[in-house]
Amino acid sequence: MGFDRLIEAIAEKKNPTVAGLDPKLDYVPEYIRKQSFEKYGFTLEGAADALLTFNKGLIDALCDIVPAVKPQCAYYEMYGWQGVRALYETISYAKSKGLFVITDGKRNDIGSTMEAYAAAHLGKVSVGEKTYAPFDSDALTVNGYLGTDGVAPLLPICREQDKGIFVLVKTSNPSSGELQDKILDGNTVYRTMGAMCEKWGEDTRGKYGYSAVGAVVGATYPQQLGELRNALPHTFFLVPGYGAQGGGAKDVAPAFDKAGRGAVINSSRGIMCAYKKGDYAETDYAKAAREEAIRMRDEISSVL
Amino acid sequence: MGFDRLIEAIAEKKNPTVAGLDPKLDYVPEYIRKQSFEKYGFTLEGAADALLTFNKGLIDALCDIVPAVKPQCAYYEMYGWQGVRALYETISYAKSKGLFVITDGKRNDIGSTMEAYAAAHLGKVSVGEKTYAPFDSDALTVNGYLGTDGVAPLLPICREQDKGIFVLVKTSNPSSGELQDKILDGNTVYRTMGAMCEKWGEDTRGKYGYSAVGAVVGATYPQQLGELRNALPHTFFLVPGYGAQGGGAKDVAPAFDKAGRGAVINSSRGIMCAYKKGDYAETDYAKAAREEAIRMRDEISSVL
Repeated sequence: MGFDRLIEAIAEKKNPTVAGLDPKLDYVPEYIRKQSFEKYGFTLEGAADALLTFNKGLIDALCDIVPAVKPQCAYYEMYGWQGVRALYETISYAKSKGLFVITDGKRNDIGSTMEAYAAAHLGKVSVGEKTYAPFDSDALTVNGYLGTDGVAPLLPICREQDKGIFVLVKTSNPSSGELQDKILDGNTVYRTMGAMCEKWGEDTRGKYGYSAVGAVVGATYPQQLGELRNALPHTFFLVPGYGAQGGGAKDVAPAFDKAGRGAVINSSRGIMCAYKKGDYAETDYAKAAREEAIRMRDEISSVL
Repeated sequence: MGFDRLIEAIAEKKNPTVAGLDPKLDYVPEYIRKQSFEKYGFTLEGAADALLTFNKGLIDALCDIVPAVKPQCAYYEMYGWQGVRALYETISYAKSKGLFVITDGKRNDIGSTMEAYAAAHLGKVSVGEKTYAPFDSDALTVNGYLGTDGVAPLLPICREQDKGIFVLVKTSNPSSGELQDKILDGNTVYRTMGAMCEKWGEDTRGKYGYSAVGAVVGATYPQQLGELRNALPHTFFLVPGYGAQGGGAKDVAPAFDKAGRGAVINSSRGIMCAYKKGDYAETDYAKAAREEAIRMRDEISSVL
C-alpha cells in the first residue's frame, strides 16, 4: 500500500531512479532494427519487434541496478496496436525481472471511462467466465484537470490491489507555468493540484507515510520541488526532467525527505541512448545504459 | 482546414451530433458476445471481436444519419492490445463509411512525446522505407494542463494533413469546477484554457472561421457554454454530457453560433444502448440506435 513496494525496491537497490523506456525507432541500434525488419519487413510489426528487443536488452542490463522502469505509452501507440502489444510485452518482461513498472500514460477521464482506464492499466477485467489483467502495471500517471471524478475511480484499485498513481502537479516543460503557475484563490494551480493529491490519497497511506496517490513534479523547477516536498508530506514524487531536459543531481535533491525517501527520479534518453555518447559500439547499448544508470545512481546518492 | 470537413458533413446530414462508440462488454447484445466467445473463447481477443462486431453494426445503421463517431480509447485499452486493435479496426471501418472520426483519448504530454501521440493518432510514421498511418483518426481530444508545449506539437499535423484537436476546457462532470472554475488572475481556469485555444488555433482557421483547435465544453453547464461560445468565436466545440449525463437539447443550444454552426454534440450510451430502453429485441440494437439518433437529430434541430 502507498508505494511501499517501490520504496522498498529503492532501498534494496540503494537507487531512487526509474529508467524511462521511451523507445523511438531512431534510438534503437541499427543491428536490432535490421534483424526485426528481416523477420517482419518494414511493417509496424517489425518496428514493434525492434522496440521490444531493444527494451529487453535494456531491462536485462538494468534490472539489478534500477528498481523501476517507466514505459511511455506514446512511443508504443506510435506504432499502432502492434506497438501497444510491445508495450504489454515490455511490462510483462520487466515484471518478470522483478522491476516496478510505472506506465506513463497521463490518462484522464471521468466515472466509468476512468474506471475503464484503471482496469486496463492497473486492474482486471472479466470476459465471460475468465479474468484478465490487460496491461497490469504497478502504477499509472494521471492528469487531474477533471478533478476528483477523474481520480476517485482509481482509488479502489490502488487500495485493493496495491497499485499507485502519479498525478501531474508541476511538469518539467518550459511552458508548464502558463496554467500551472497562475494564482487561483491566492494559490498557484500546481499547489492546488498538490493539495488535492494529499486529500485523494488520505485512505491509502502505507508504512512509510506515503499514500498511493503520488505527484509528478519536474526536476527543472527545484525551488517548487522543495516547496512541494514540504507542503505534501504524504505524496510520493515522480520527478522527470533529469539529464536530457537539464535537471541535475542538485536540482532533484529537494524532492527527498529527511530519511532520503519520497521520490523517484526518471531518466529516459540519458540511459536509453547512453551508447550514442562516449566510446561504445552499437552492440554495447545495454552495457552503456547500465554504466549510465550506475553513474546516475552514484551522482544522486552523493547529494542525499 | 479548421474542421471544414466536419462542418460540411454536419450540413450535409443536417445533424450536428457525434455518436460515441464506448463499447463496454455489458453494452454488447448477448447474441454477439456468444458468437465471439464461440469463435475465440473467453479471451481478450473474444471480447475485442465482440466490440468490433457491435461497432460495425452501429456504424452501418448510423452512417447516413450522423456525420461523425467518437470512439473512447479507454473502452478499447480495457481489453488489452487486442482491444486497441479493435479500436484501429473501428476507426478504419467508420472512415470507409464516410464518417469523420474523433478519437477520444485526452492525450497529453510534451515535445517529442506529444509528437509521438500526434503521429500515432492523426499522422504518419516511417518504418524503414515505408510509411504508415497507425490509427489515422480525423481529430483527437487533448488535455491542455501542460500548456503550449503539449499542444504545439499537434499543430503542424493539423495544418498539413487537415486534422483537428479538441482541448478540454470545461468538462461535463460534477467535480469539473474543483480546478476549472477557480479564479486565476481575475479569470477562471476554463476561460484561460479557452483563450489559449483561440491563440493556439490562430494559423489554422478554415473557411467557416473555425480553427483546427477545438474545445471540449460540457452540455451540463449551459451558462458557461454560452459564455464560451461568445468568448471563443474561432473555436469549434465538442459537447459531451447530452442524454445520459443529464444535458438536453435546450442545454446544448448555446453551443451554436448564429449560423447554427460551431458545435457537435456527443451521445454515447443514449445511442449505443437505445435497444435496452423501449420495446426492442436485442438483435434490433442497430435499428434502435438509428431511431435514437434520428430522434436526437430532430430534437436538436428544433432548438437551432
